[in-house]
Amino acid sequence: MDHHLISKLRIDGARLWSSLMAMAQIGATAHGGCNRQALTDEDKIGRDLFVQWAQAAGCTVTVDAVGNIFAARKGTDPDADPVLIGSHLDTQATGGRFDGVYGVMAGLEVMRVLQTHGVDLKRTVEVASWTNEEGCRFAPAMLGSGVVAGTYTLDFAYERRDRSGITFRQELERIGYRGTAPARARRFRAMFEAHIEQGPILENLDATVGVVTGIQGAYWFDVTLRGVACHAGPTPMELRRDPWRAATPIIDAAFAIAKANGPWGRATIGDLKAFPGARNTVPEQLVIAVDLRHPESAVLESMVASFREEVAQLAAFAGIDARIEQIWHMPATRFDAELGGIVDRTAQDLGFSRVSIVSGAGHDSLHTAQFAPTAMIFVPCAGGLSHNEAESATPADLEAGANVLLQSVLCVAND
Amino acid sequence: MDHHLISKLRIDGARLWSSLMAMAQIGATAHGGCNRQALTDEDKIGRDLFVQWAQAAGCTVTVDAVGNIFAARKGTDPDADPVLIGSHLDTQATGGRFDGVYGVMAGLEVMRVLQTHGVDLKRTVEVASWTNEEGCRFAPAMLGSGVVAGTYTLDFAYERRDRSGITFRQELERIGYRGTAPARARRFRAMFEAHIEQGPILENLDATVGVVTGIQGAYWFDVTLRGVACHAGPTPMELRRDPWRAATPIIDAAFAIAKANGPWGRATIGDLKAFPGARNTVPEQLVIAVDLRHPESAVLESMVASFREEVAQLAAFAGIDARIEQIWHMPATRFDAELGGIVDRTAQDLGFSRVSIVSGAGHDSLHTAQFAPTAMIFVPCAGGLSHNEAESATPADLEAGANVLLQSVLCVAND
Repeated sequence: MDHHLISKLRIDGARLWSSLMAMAQIGATAHGGCNRQALTDEDKIGRDLFVQWAQAAGCTVTVDAVGNIFAARKGTDPDADPVLIGSHLDTQATGGRFDGVYGVMAGLEVMRVLQTHGVDLKRTVEVASWTNEEGCRFAPAMLGSGVVAGTYTLDFAYERRDRSGITFRQELERIGYRGTAPARARRFRAMFEAHIEQGPILENLDATVGVVTGIQGAYWFDVTLRGVACHAGPTPMELRRDPWRAATPIIDAAFAIAKANGPWGRATIGDLKAFPGARNTVPEQLVIAVDLRHPESAVLESMVASFREEVAQLAAFAGIDARIEQIWHMPATRFDAELGGIVDRTAQDLGFSRVSIVSGAGHDSLHTAQFAPTAMIFVPCAGGLSHNEAESATPADLEAGANVLLQSVLCVAND
Repeated sequence: MDHHLISKLRIDGARLWSSLMAMAQIGATAHGGCNRQALTDEDKIGRDLFVQWAQAAGCTVTVDAVGNIFAARKGTDPDADPVLIGSHLDTQATGGRFDGVYGVMAGLEVMRVLQTHGVDLKRTVEVASWTNEEGCRFAPAMLGSGVVAGTYTLDFAYERRDRSGITFRQELERIGYRGTAPARARRFRAMFEAHIEQGPILENLDATVGVVTGIQGAYWFDVTLRGVACHAGPTPMELRRDPWRAATPIIDAAFAIAKANGPWGRATIGDLKAFPGARNTVPEQLVIAVDLRHPESAVLESMVASFREEVAQLAAFAGIDARIEQIWHMPATRFDAELGGIVDRTAQDLGFSRVSIVSGAGHDSLHTAQFAPTAMIFVPCAGGLSHNEAESATPADLEAGANVLLQSVLCVAND
């Protein structure tokens, strides 16, 4: 099959949509979302369906020790590094129908197109479904790809427990997905992940495809401000050591730091807990949950340094003790420039409006980028909503993204 | 007994302290505090001990339908309005040894002094122990005095339930303190309540006695700010509707309003809840618990009006929906000026340093002021701490306050 014919290959958008809707029935929620958390009965049913579909599309399926599924279409050159497509089938507890499953179903659709047209490519193409990307049942998130990347050991993954105390390993074995393939990195020519944006940028710019250049780095901090608790009535304002006097300027400073590092800087105060939390008591302690992000490591580090300085100064000014505890850090990831260029040109050739974009959320691609040249393709989702039962994307956008995926895969699978 | 001899009468400070320490053994906590919540077994034991002591001091004890105990020493003129002394024996769950019980034990000590010296006064003198002042087991607080004042009906009190669902009436009957006397207001010449300050003002001014001119009015509000939840990573700062953008200026505005109405204006943000409260999600909603206080009704109303205006303007400016819900209101109470003058002169005559002070916390006197001329006498407590197991007051200060109480009672009991 020559290059001209290959470039005419197209995704069957109706079939893609129908796969997505069938998968959405597994763990369907009352409000139109999906609850298919990792290693549950629903996850098993979803995995079984994917395996069955992949085999029907001519793929050979293997499962590794951490439950990652690989559906491979053999290439003509057994020595050439394969091309990987991947995302995840698990969802949040009140998740949507597209987050993760879109990337796997788009990959499956690529396999079906190759099979339908009997396309033999030089390189093996594989579709991966990574285990436990969401992390809502077994923390941390992106665990299956993280083990393969070597970020986590297999034993670490096995020992994770859900809220009822059941281990990851028990559940992986129970659903029959503790495979025999080693859960470790192999060489790949490329890894592509298609995903809904989970943010509002594409929708706001009326663009169909986001060419993802990387994943924002993030820092999670707990800022603990300690004053002195006292009764709301009898204690004069000037005799109080109220931690709010440090908290409000610190929160404002976080936002100011994000703004000063716009447009990619982000600051979020997702939670704040007051102790003792009684209405008629000045809090002894406030704990502020802070999330700072930026796609450039150097900028993110300087944002963090500014924030630490602001916390120290503002707390000292208010006479409040401040402590900053780092809870988590996700390093900024820069995706492969060559593959990004391929995605960009492919989208252009297909006539889709496209923009360069940075992912604000973590993805399995964050881990695959450690061992394989990686690129991501975003499509818009309504209102930027995700991790939400109301998550929604149009069949046309989903088809467009899958076509960009197909052509990008084809572009590297024969080189 | 002539006036000169009467003015020489003095409290036995050692006996007062010993009564307080004996009462503190009932419900004593590991950290030196007291847990003698209303209508528990501990409350019954405390009540029994008080009744026994009062009878030993020559008093006639009656109990009303809401469990308030009155220990009376008959006056020579049965038609003269009696003089009332009162406070409460119940404590917070992690309460101290002085809040409430001091006022009752000081009243008991007055009775003992009168008995020891065989003083016959024109007016009957009564010591009241009001039921359920704290309100921590059965809300609302100050329930026994509130029923007598007509603020609450007897049935309302009976129907209150604790967290396990047991009613006030069940527990009142169980401990044997559902009395037969009607729980309604009678005429009194005066009501005096001695209490620890529960704030740091006396200690800071190095004063022994606080002549309490009234109780601050208070408003409790829930301010609910509603924005749009979104993922901390993918959502650009300028596309967010983050309720924090309204919250921090609103909290600052509350403090500014208190300061502008100093020295008595107070603003407290005792709690704040974020929904969903996930670190990597911009909150959809923040609920801020606000407590505003001032001793003058008119000033308090203007503080509330300013606050409502600030909330509306700051929320509108931030593009956030704001709703203010009034949770509770305690009207400002002004105590009787004549009795305040008597307390002040008495403290002066006894040589104690004294200051005029407003109570920031509610007391049974708030209710008695509705049906009887009322005054309160404050003594310092260490660090202003109260509702705390570490609550502490010195024997000398407690004795001083009780002597002011004794002389103030004597001053009106023969007029």
